[in-house]
Amino acid sequence: MCKYELEIVKSMNMKDKIQKDQVPFGKTFTDHMFIMDYETGKGWYDPRIVPYAPITLDPAAMIFHYGQTVFEGMKAYRGEDNRILLFRPDKNFQRLNLSSERLCIPPIDVERVMDYLTQLISLEQDWVPSKEGTSLYIRPYIISTEPGLAVAPSQTYKLMIILAPVGSYFSGGIKPVRISVEDQFTRAVKGGTGMAKTAGNYSSGFQAQAKASKEGNADVLWLDGVEKRYIEEVGSMNIFFKINGEIVTPELNGSILKGITRMSIIELLKEWGIPVVERKISIEELSQAYTEGHLEEAFGTGTAAVISPVGELNWLGRKMIINNNEIGEVSKKLYDTITGIQTGKIEDLHDWTVEIK
Amino acid sequence: MCKYELEIVKSMNMKDKIQKDQVPFGKTFTDHMFIMDYETGKGWYDPRIVPYAPITLDPAAMIFHYGQTVFEGMKAYRGEDNRILLFRPDKNFQRLNLSSERLCIPPIDVERVMDYLTQLISLEQDWVPSKEGTSLYIRPYIISTEPGLAVAPSQTYKLMIILAPVGSYFSGGIKPVRISVEDQFTRAVKGGTGMAKTAGNYSSGFQAQAKASKEGNADVLWLDGVEKRYIEEVGSMNIFFKINGEIVTPELNGSILKGITRMSIIELLKEWGIPVVERKISIEELSQAYTEGHLEEAFGTGTAAVISPVGELNWLGRKMIINNNEIGEVSKKLYDTITGIQTGKIEDLHDWTVEIK
Ligand SMILES: Cc1ncc(COP(=O)(O)O)c(C=O)c1O
Ligand SMILES: Cc1ncc(COP(=O)(O)O)c(C=O)c1O
Repeated sequence: MCKYELEIVKSMNMKDKIQKDQVPFGKTFTDHMFIMDYETGKGWYDPRIVPYAPITLDPAAMIFHYGQTVFEGMKAYRGEDNRILLFRPDKNFQRLNLSSERLCIPPIDVERVMDYLTQLISLEQDWVPSKEGTSLYIRPYIISTEPGLAVAPSQTYKLMIILAPVGSYFSGGIKPVRISVEDQFTRAVKGGTGMAKTAGNYSSGFQAQAKASKEGNADVLWLDGVEKRYIEEVGSMNIFFKINGEIVTPELNGSILKGITRMSIIELLKEWGIPVVERKISIEELSQAYTEGHLEEAFGTGTAAVISPVGELNWLGRKMIINNNEIGEVSKKLYDTITGIQTGKIEDLHDWTVEIK
Repeated sequence: MCKYELEIVKSMNMKDKIQKDQVPFGKTFTDHMFIMDYETGKGWYDPRIVPYAPITLDPAAMIFHYGQTVFEGMKAYRGEDNRILLFRPDKNFQRLNLSSERLCIPPIDVERVMDYLTQLISLEQDWVPSKEGTSLYIRPYIISTEPGLAVAPSQTYKLMIILAPVGSYFSGGIKPVRISVEDQFTRAVKGGTGMAKTAGNYSSGFQAQAKASKEGNADVLWLDGVEKRYIEEVGSMNIFFKINGEIVTPELNGSILKGITRMSIIELLKEWGIPVVERKISIEELSQAYTEGHLEEAFGTGTAAVISPVGELNWLGRKMIINNNEIGEVSKKLYDTITGIQTGKIEDLHDWTVEIK
C-alpha cells in the first residue's frame, strides 16, 4: 500500500541550533529531512519527514555506477519581522524537473513538493538564522536507487530534502574575488548535460578548480567546449559584465545553467531601464573591452552569494583588474535590491517571495 | 588504529549459486564484497571482505551531490580445465587510477588491490560459471563519502568490489547489432571527462539511447562534441571498421575510453600482419566508404561482449547494412582468439591472463 499523505516522524534527539555567523558551508544539518520514494508504475509515494540520519542503499544502486541524479539549491531567509521567506522556489522545482528530463528521471509534482517543503521548514523554523547574510540552505535532490549494473535508467528513485544553516557568504562586507579563465578543461558542451543540475557536472570541474586555486584564484571562468572562446559561467554562478554602460551575460545555449538569480537580475535591469543583453561574448572581446577601458563591472550571480563581484580576471597570463577591485554601482544596487526582497526589507512587487507560515 | 591487513567476515547466509546461462546482467550478486576506506592523512585503510549487504551513507555524502566517483568493469572466466582466469586485470586497475586522477580521487596501490581481488574471487570461486560465454563480472568502484555541500573534493572515500555472475552476451550465437549515429546529443568533449570511467558519463547518454532504442537500435554511435563529425565510440564499447582491407579505429583523443579489449585487438592485428590504424575518422568518410563498397566490417569492442559486430548503421535516415548483417572474418577471428585466451583454450603467449589459485 503506497501512501501519498505526508508522514512526520519527529526526532527524539534534537541538536543545538546553530546561530553563529560563521559556519562552514553545508557541514551542519537540521534535525529532520524529507524523503519520498518512486517506483515505475507506482509513481512518487510515501512522502515523509524523518530525523536526519544516514540512508542505506544496495552497493549496486545506480547512483553509485551511472550517476543518474539531479539536485537543486535554494535558501530560506529570516526577515527582520521574523517572517521566513523563500525566493522563487517554484523556479527551483521547475528547474529540477528540467534537469530530471535530461537525465531520464521522472518529474515531481511541483505543487505537492512545495507543500512538503513548507511543512519541513515549518518544523525546522528555529534553524533559520537571523543575522544579516545568513540563511537556511535547502538542498533537494533525486538519486537513482535500483540495484543493477545494466546501463539504463533506474526504475526506483528517492527524492530527498536536507537543510543546512549557512553563514554569510561575505563576512565583513562584500569582497571582490579573483577568477581565472580556464583554457584547458571543459565543463560542458552543446548536446551534453551543462544546462542540467546533475552531480557529474560538478566533480568534472574539480581539477580545473584545484589548478586555479593553486594560483590564488577563487574559481574558474569556463569557456565553451567547442571553440574555447565564448564565456559560459563560473563554478556555481552565472556571469555578467558591464561594458560601456551595457550589461552583457552569456545567452542560454544549452550548456550553461539557467540561474534563478540571473533571471531575476535581467528582470530588474529591464525595469530599471539599464540596457541588458543575453548574447555570445568571447574572451577576446572582453579582453579588448578591458584594454579600451570599457569593462566597467563583472559579477557572478547565484543563490550562494547573490552577487559576487569579480575584482580580478586572469587569462593566459593577463591580469585584468576590474573597477579597482571594488564592487561596482550596478552590482551593489542589484545586491541590495535582491537581498532586500529576499529578507522582506524591500517590498516584493514581483511576487517572488513565498512566506512559510 | 587503521588496519592494512585484509579482514574476512564470512556470510552466515549463503545464496544459491547461479549457473543458468541466461541471467539479467548485473542483477544477482555473490555472497561477499570487498570494502576499503580512505581518509586524507590516513590513506587507504581497513580492507575487508564482508557479506554482500547494503551500505549506509550520510545524506550529504559527496557522491549524491557532486558525483565524484570512478569505476571499472572486468571478468573472471572459468576455463575448461576448471581454472579461473582474469584478463589483464592490472590494466583495469591502472585505468581506475587514471580515471581517479581526472576526478581528483586518490590513487590505489594496484598490486595490493589485485591481491585483495584475488582473495575475494578465491572465496567466491563457486560463483564463477562454466557454461560457454558466461563469466563472473567484477565491478570495482570508488565513491566519495564525506558529508558536505561545498563543491570541492571529498576527504573520505570507499573502494568497493562487487561480483555478479553473468550469462553469455550472445545466446544462440553471435548476432550483429543495429546502431544509430547520434547527431544531437554529445557524450564527451576534449577537456571533459570522456576518457575517465566516471558515473556521469553514462547517465548523460540515457536520453540518446532511449531515442535510438525507440527506433529499434541497440545502442548509439557517438560523434565528437566539437564538430559532430568524427566517430568516437558506442555506449560501452570502442568501435572498429574494416575499410578496404585496413582496420581503422578512432584515435585516443581524450574524450573516448582507452578500452582494454581495444588495446588487445590492436596488438593481435599487428601480430597477424593485418593493417590497423588509430586515426580520426569522420562519419562522412565512413558513409562514402560504404557507398563505394569498401566498408567490409564494423564491430564494437568491450569487456561485455568482447566483439559485437555491427550489422546495420543508421545515420540521418541512411541505413547501411554491413557485411550482409553477418559477422565478418576478422571480427570472428578476433572473437575466437580473445575468448580463447580468456578461457585458457588458446595458449596465452602475451601474459594477459592471471590465474586465481
Ligand atoms: C553551474 C551553476 N551555474 C549557475 C548557478 C546559479 O544559479 P542560481 O542563480 O539559480 O543559484 C548555479 C547554482 O545554482 C550553478 O550550479
Ligand atoms: C565508454 C566505454 N568505452 C569503451 C569500453 C570498452 O572498454 P574495455 O574494452 O576495457 O571493456 C567501455 C567499457 O569498459 C566503456 O564504458
